[in-house]
Amino acid sequence: MGLRNPGNTSNPLGSKVTQAFVQQFPGLNTLGISMARIDFAPGGLNPPHTHPRGTELLVVVEGTLLVGFVTSDQLNNTLFTKVLYKGDVFVFPIGLIHFQLNIGNTYALAFSGLSSQNPGLITIANAVFGAKAPISADVLTKAFQLDKKVVDHLEAQFWYDNN
Amino acid sequence: MGLRNPGNTSNPLGSKVTQAFVQQFPGLNTLGISMARIDFAPGGLNPPHTHPRGTELLVVVEGTLLVGFVTSDQLNNTLFTKVLYKGDVFVFPIGLIHFQLNIGNTYALAFSGLSSQNPGLITIANAVFGAKAPISADVLTKAFQLDKKVVDHLEAQFWYDNN
Amino acid sequence: MGLRNPGNTSNPLGSKVTQAFVQQFPGLNTLGISMARIDFAPGGLNPPHTHPRGTELLVVVEGTLLVGFVTSDQLNNTLFTKVLYKGDVFVFPIGLIHFQLNIGNTYALAFSGLSSQNPGLITIANAVFGAKAPISADVLTKAFQLDKKVVDHLEAQFWYDNN
Amino acid sequence: MGLRNPGNTSNPLGSKVTQAFVQQFPGLNTLGISMARIDFAPGGLNPPHTHPRGTELLVVVEGTLLVGFVTSDQLNNTLFTKVLYKGDVFVFPIGLIHFQLNIGNTYALAFSGLSSQNPGLITIANAVFGAKAPISADVLTKAFQLDKKVVDHLEAQFWYDNN
Amino acid sequence: MGLRNPGNTSNPLGSKVTQAFVQQFPGLNTLGISMARIDFAPGGLNPPHTHPRGTELLVVVEGTLLVGFVTSDQLNNTLFTKVLYKGDVFVFPIGLIHFQLNIGNTYALAFSGLSSQNPGLITIANAVFGAKAPISADVLTKAFQLDKKVVDHLEAQFWYDNN
Amino acid sequence: MGLRNPGNTSNPLGSKVTQAFVQQFPGLNTLGISMARIDFAPGGLNPPHTHPRGTELLVVVEGTLLVGFVTSDQLNNTLFTKVLYKGDVFVFPIGLIHFQLNIGNTYALAFSGLSSQNPGLITIANAVFGAKAPISADVLTKAFQLDKKVVDHLEAQFWYDNN
Repeated sequence: MGLRNPGNTSNPLGSKVTQAFVQQFPGLNTLGISMARIDFAPGGLNPPHTHPRGTELLVVVEGTLLVGFVTSDQLNNTLFTKVLYKGDVFVFPIGLIHFQLNIGNTYALAFSGLSSQNPGLITIANAVFGAKAPISADVLTKAFQLDKKVVDHLEAQFWYDNN
Repeated sequence: MGLRNPGNTSNPLGSKVTQAFVQQFPGLNTLGISMARIDFAPGGLNPPHTHPRGTELLVVVEGTLLVGFVTSDQLNNTLFTKVLYKGDVFVFPIGLIHFQLNIGNTYALAFSGLSSQNPGLITIANAVFGAKAPISADVLTKAFQLDKKVVDHLEAQFWYDNN
Repeated sequence: MGLRNPGNTSNPLGSKVTQAFVQQFPGLNTLGISMARIDFAPGGLNPPHTHPRGTELLVVVEGTLLVGFVTSDQLNNTLFTKVLYKGDVFVFPIGLIHFQLNIGNTYALAFSGLSSQNPGLITIANAVFGAKAPISADVLTKAFQLDKKVVDHLEAQFWYDNN
Repeated sequence: MGLRNPGNTSNPLGSKVTQAFVQQFPGLNTLGISMARIDFAPGGLNPPHTHPRGTELLVVVEGTLLVGFVTSDQLNNTLFTKVLYKGDVFVFPIGLIHFQLNIGNTYALAFSGLSSQNPGLITIANAVFGAKAPISADVLTKAFQLDKKVVDHLEAQFWYDNN
Repeated sequence: MGLRNPGNTSNPLGSKVTQAFVQQFPGLNTLGISMARIDFAPGGLNPPHTHPRGTELLVVVEGTLLVGFVTSDQLNNTLFTKVLYKGDVFVFPIGLIHFQLNIGNTYALAFSGLSSQNPGLITIANAVFGAKAPISADVLTKAFQLDKKVVDHLEAQFWYDNN
Repeated sequence: MGLRNPGNTSNPLGSKVTQAFVQQFPGLNTLGISMARIDFAPGGLNPPHTHPRGTELLVVVEGTLLVGFVTSDQLNNTLFTKVLYKGDVFVFPIGLIHFQLNIGNTYALAFSGLSSQNPGLITIANAVFGAKAPISADVLTKAFQLDKKVVDHLEAQFWYDNN
């Protein structure tokens, strides 16, 4: 199983996740672990997302990342954040919203182990504003306290981006 | 342990979740299950959220709810949605973003079982726009393709709301 | 999946359990949770039983129930019992013998979450005296210190009732 | 940890279970397994019981046992039974009611592995008729379709026996 | 399922393990437990091995065994060892290297419960020196600080023995 | 938590494992994952070992490694082996004996995710020949079919090396 090839980061976010989950690497079945490589252009962002079925443990192999996760409502949605350099390790507990941002001037590379062979990935913006069919605008305007126009604009944009 | 008292729904969302998780009901410790009651004013919304450590199984006891969840990026962020009447049951798989909206003209009430004594609750809007300290605006403008002004406005609002 | 219809309580026990386990609701597969509704006529009894693969968390939606469970031999077979009113919650730990009795003058209704998609149900009287083929009378007379006549009578009765 | 000493079988049931559970053998903690030895006088019975948190795998070391378990209501309370000779192995799945009876003319001995360091033991007669405080006679007469006199007699007997 | 027949101990090690794992006893599937009988000629050895997916709990039924296991590098490879007599119980935690040696003048017999229906068995000498194809001699000479001649000799021997 | 510093590979094996297990990184507690970095001098060997409580998923970050694992006796001690280049991923299932050898002319570096916060590490040579106190020579000569002199020599060597 190879994660040899850099992910193509020439996209608006400037990052690319390449997964070695059980779908790509069937030998992981029953073994409870998987891996991903994340490539970042300078300024590249792996946007807020969750893994519904796995904790992620990330190591920086090249470059400098600002990383963070937000705790649950019970713990007051506290943001834990840190700047990571080559060789640093950081953990994103199962199901919590987290992100990584390349704050260096150079390309950055990280590898992550995940505590499930099928951890899943939910990019918050995609799931909220890019769901297919779209989530009712009533739900989103109320939940995010946004104008219906802004919601319509967002839904149009993520629907497109994500396909 | 009582979930006798209706939650107070006189808030902007028009809904209130009352938890019987292990924090409130210590006898659940090691037993792998918990419960919540959800009260809805007419039009009330339980906004998009996740439970990072539990699947939720909901039964409607009064009223009519529109409920939905969104699958992960791997399954193309597909929205599954349904209108539920008294006695109907619906399942929200672990970690997926979901919501419930009272679409009837009357008060509504639901009870949920959750597959953990400590399932957690992450309200997406709170965790993304109301994190303490706030998530860097660089991250949010890029991730949600929103103007910095909109992000600043949202962060001010949720920071306040959530306290 | 619906648990809309009241269970028919016109039987000798005056109660009826309707299950939403994985057999009835295949979408629960792998999700580790299930639900049941329990309807009680006045005086109706959900007789002593266990769930071999799940803890049960019950909420009363209508009426008044006397509920109880008995601990294991290690804890001296202690009975924990409580009267529950509308909105009250009670937990029956995995594998312990428990029951619910409608002690009010009106119909009662409860919903239960169970910590497995396939928790199972073992009604003690059915399994002990109504097994098919019957358990040897030698075993039952000795174990319950009952006359063989009483055991024969019980086995005849439960064999019939249960079919 | 020793299970060297034969259990004293000079009691009405003619059997004695000696446990090496985590309470007796703390080194089992976190290891998910435990053991018991069961001594049987001729005709001795290990009466119907369950282990709420473990499957039992039994091997006969001396003598001849009739063993059986009863499936759940879902599988129609079917009795599975077998005569076991020295060296035979039989499995009692988690939470199911089961028993062992020495049908030989000689002393019998078995060892059991259980799939938990703390599997628990619930002797049905003790938990149903010997609970402390007693289960309401209303519950038992209805559930077992027994005269109140019989129930009172049984409760008096098991309360005593079990102390 | 029978473990009635003594294993044939007329081999160089003087011991024979007979397994009742899920492969031999399909009824164990999903139940998380299995069993083995181990027969020992006088002086017979069950050589150093591990169970990659299960803890083992052993009871001596006949004879006298010297048993031991070695902790991990983190706990300094400490040897825990004990002489066991009839009825004694000993636990070998999951994945640790362990052995049993008949130090009595007579035949010995033990039964073991294992905390998985499929615990696996890795005999260290077989896996290291008898792998098919052989592990590169570079690896083994370095790892065990043995002459290449000794390694070649060992690999030839175990390759043969194991077939 | 940092894995920034290269491990010191100036030892006879030419490799060094640096762990970020729960002992070193307490934040991993309950999260079910850990990480290690492995530095290799040219020709460096991470000798045959197991993780008793975790599967390992390795990614090569620099250099070229020959890696392998051996299946259990049930699967005939089959060796699976592969040459890995930068970016390649390989999985070592829980409890199986495995190794990595730097077959390139340059320094090599790998990171591994492990499916437990406390996977443990058992270096086979250390645990077999370097146990403290030593395993009885009777056991080792028989198990490995080695002269007592060779065993004594090995035990002397590993006892020393390992302290």
